[in-house]
Amino acid sequence: MLTIDVKNLTKVTSANGLSETEMASKNKLIHAYLQKIEARGVGFYKTIDAPWTEEILALAKKSDRKYYDVVVLGIGGSSLGMLCLQQSLKHLFENEKPRSSTPRVHVLDNIDPVLMTEIQDVISLNKTLFITISKSGTTPETISQYFYFRSLTDKAELPANLHHLFITDAHKGVLKDIADRDGIKTFPIPDDVGGRFSVQTPVGLVPAALIGIDIVELLKGMRAMRDRFLSDDASINVPFQLASLQYQLEQKGKLINVLMPYSQKLIRLADWYRQLLAESIGKKLNDKGETVNVGITPINALGVTDQHSQTQLYNEGPNDKLFIFVEVEKLGAEVKIPHLLPDNEALGYLQNITFNKLINTEKKATEAAYTQNDRPSITLQIDEVNAYSLGELFMLFEGATAFLGEFYGINAFDQPGVELSKILTREMLLVK
Amino acid sequence: MLTIDVKNLTKVTSANGLSETEMASKNKLIHAYLQKIEARGVGFYKTIDAPWTEEILALAKKSDRKYYDVVVLGIGGSSLGMLCLQQSLKHLFENEKPRSSTPRVHVLDNIDPVLMTEIQDVISLNKTLFITISKSGTTPETISQYFYFRSLTDKAELPANLHHLFITDAHKGVLKDIADRDGIKTFPIPDDVGGRFSVQTPVGLVPAALIGIDIVELLKGMRAMRDRFLSDDASINVPFQLASLQYQLEQKGKLINVLMPYSQKLIRLADWYRQLLAESIGKKLNDKGETVNVGITPINALGVTDQHSQTQLYNEGPNDKLFIFVEVEKLGAEVKIPHLLPDNEALGYLQNITFNKLINTEKKATEAAYTQNDRPSITLQIDEVNAYSLGELFMLFEGATAFLGEFYGINAFDQPGVELSKILTREMLLVK
Repeated sequence: MLTIDVKNLTKVTSANGLSETEMASKNKLIHAYLQKIEARGVGFYKTIDAPWTEEILALAKKSDRKYYDVVVLGIGGSSLGMLCLQQSLKHLFENEKPRSSTPRVHVLDNIDPVLMTEIQDVISLNKTLFITISKSGTTPETISQYFYFRSLTDKAELPANLHHLFITDAHKGVLKDIADRDGIKTFPIPDDVGGRFSVQTPVGLVPAALIGIDIVELLKGMRAMRDRFLSDDASINVPFQLASLQYQLEQKGKLINVLMPYSQKLIRLADWYRQLLAESIGKKLNDKGETVNVGITPINALGVTDQHSQTQLYNEGPNDKLFIFVEVEKLGAEVKIPHLLPDNEALGYLQNITFNKLINTEKKATEAAYTQNDRPSITLQIDEVNAYSLGELFMLFEGATAFLGEFYGINAFDQPGVELSKILTREMLLVK
Repeated sequence: MLTIDVKNLTKVTSANGLSETEMASKNKLIHAYLQKIEARGVGFYKTIDAPWTEEILALAKKSDRKYYDVVVLGIGGSSLGMLCLQQSLKHLFENEKPRSSTPRVHVLDNIDPVLMTEIQDVISLNKTLFITISKSGTTPETISQYFYFRSLTDKAELPANLHHLFITDAHKGVLKDIADRDGIKTFPIPDDVGGRFSVQTPVGLVPAALIGIDIVELLKGMRAMRDRFLSDDASINVPFQLASLQYQLEQKGKLINVLMPYSQKLIRLADWYRQLLAESIGKKLNDKGETVNVGITPINALGVTDQHSQTQLYNEGPNDKLFIFVEVEKLGAEVKIPHLLPDNEALGYLQNITFNKLINTEKKATEAAYTQNDRPSITLQIDEVNAYSLGELFMLFEGATAFLGEFYGINAFDQPGVELSKILTREMLLVK
């Protein structure tokens, strides 16, 4: 079960940390905040029980060994969850290994033309399933990619309904129309779930199931955390605890949150979280329509790698960051370091240890250094990286983000600030 | 030739931008700052002429087709430059393609034990060259990895001198001793060049040459930018221009610099730059020994991908960021978007355009939106992503970082803030 360790916050000065009293000071708000979230009519914590799981599992079974490759056409909320699931739960070099029984997946989350041409060097069209993900169907990047690859499969005279699948609005939109016309299978994106909260919907589940990820366990982990998210008891409600300390530390000038997992498999969790935190909490207006320009800036980092890249700044630069470590008890392999220079005194401390011991010790040393330098940090602990713990982590951050919105009195579920550049793109292209 | 476009800075309010007068206001400092940098005795801009290029090219020629895989054991400055070169100049899916005439490269820049076991599923030891990179030879992560893979090659009875190569101090240290003992080839890391400035030394050049990257062109681009860095003329000295505006905008509260290339190939340039800026400028003490805790926090981003992840925050959140775009004129492929729904009005703006046009228009729309929202941005422009322009970019950022150090009156070339966690790691492991 996921646990949260906040004791480092009590070890730094009160200007840069939180006492136990402070940490508990907001707990009485839980009930009211849950009601406010409910009143916003969002479904991210409800859709976990939605009825598509069986249908997705049936699809995965039916597709078994039919495809060598799955290519996901999607961007932002339509890609980041899947990228995290793939990195976390598959082999680190999955796409380079000899083919296994499940297809490989490539997520094309950019429109650089080189991506469109070079992907063709590593897939065979007649063994590929393209999954196009867009709620409206009019996301320009995604629909352009669909046009491109649909042209290719058409030219190769491959049946569209065997090589394309859509995840889109259940009732309307461009993709829905094409699906109806060409008999292409679709899965829905629920109306009340925004892209950055959609990993628990077909957006994340369909490609995950196709590459053999245990989505039943994933949803089980999400439900377990959802139950904690809905609890009025702060000692159970970890999402609330996290939001409360993020908010209170932001009020003390910790405007940046660094998410730093100590596990190679979790490197993309922080990418997924960047969108969730940035888009949800970075807002100009509050619920009353007042200009507030709030936001916490998320940074993705990786232990121990980024100790050799960021730690100098984090220890000595401006004290404007909260560090959120993720620690994994069992890393999936236990590997001894064979000491080849037993007589070397300077390297004596590496004797009789494992890489596991080294990585976990470096994590402890890093947090101790941050604490000595008066920098606040907390740790999320999981037993191991698996579908269940991923589900807990996703729901923890989603729930915390929902609570954060209430702390700031803003709508965490819209994204008005991305409209302007979309409008400008359209205008600029129409002028040409 | 690389150019810099700063006009957006004059279009935002003076609280959040810079007038032309302000931008030029520091130019008289160039000469004095160059003298100060020279006085620090650092060699990052001198080593470009060092005499190892021929030897590296000879090694690459000799190794031709001997290895299927190169595995780099290194972390931080020993890995980030190479990762950027590989991503920028090789096929986007190089390691998944059928083998080409040059070996694949894997950079193991973490010590998660899973990395050590899973890499073995995709390489053959007897066709692999391991390159261990550590100045002192005692970097715990790197020496542990070396021990591990050296044990494996020993157990397989493979000659160490054919399967290992070191890049380390020329005269002393653990790796140097082992090399002398076992006849292992070494290349030097110059004394006066720190890890984060070392991509132009054998650290970056040896693995790059082995996988077929044109290091002669890379160095040519670096020299061209080095000449500009050494010029007293601000209109030529782009590194100084960049540093001057980063510094002046930091003084106006832009504590975060977002580096956002609009090119899939350049995704790792921002990772490399994160270390350079964070470790160089994030400092507790200035040259006089006063506590200043300065630093600019770098963020890596990618266009257009992160428009769908970060732009909401960037447009509406706290106005504490400078955006540094990188724009590429020729993206390496020209790909038309075949419009499959010519009658759809909402998608009319996608008619008769290429992905190239779409990505560049989205970039222009994004910067226009930032400007309308009073957020400062600049653009670095290159013709195309190649070894020469990479060389220019590396040297631009290295030179700018050196100037930034002088603006703050700090030593940009040390990293005292990483020592504490190293000491604590050793202590914790010795207690066990």
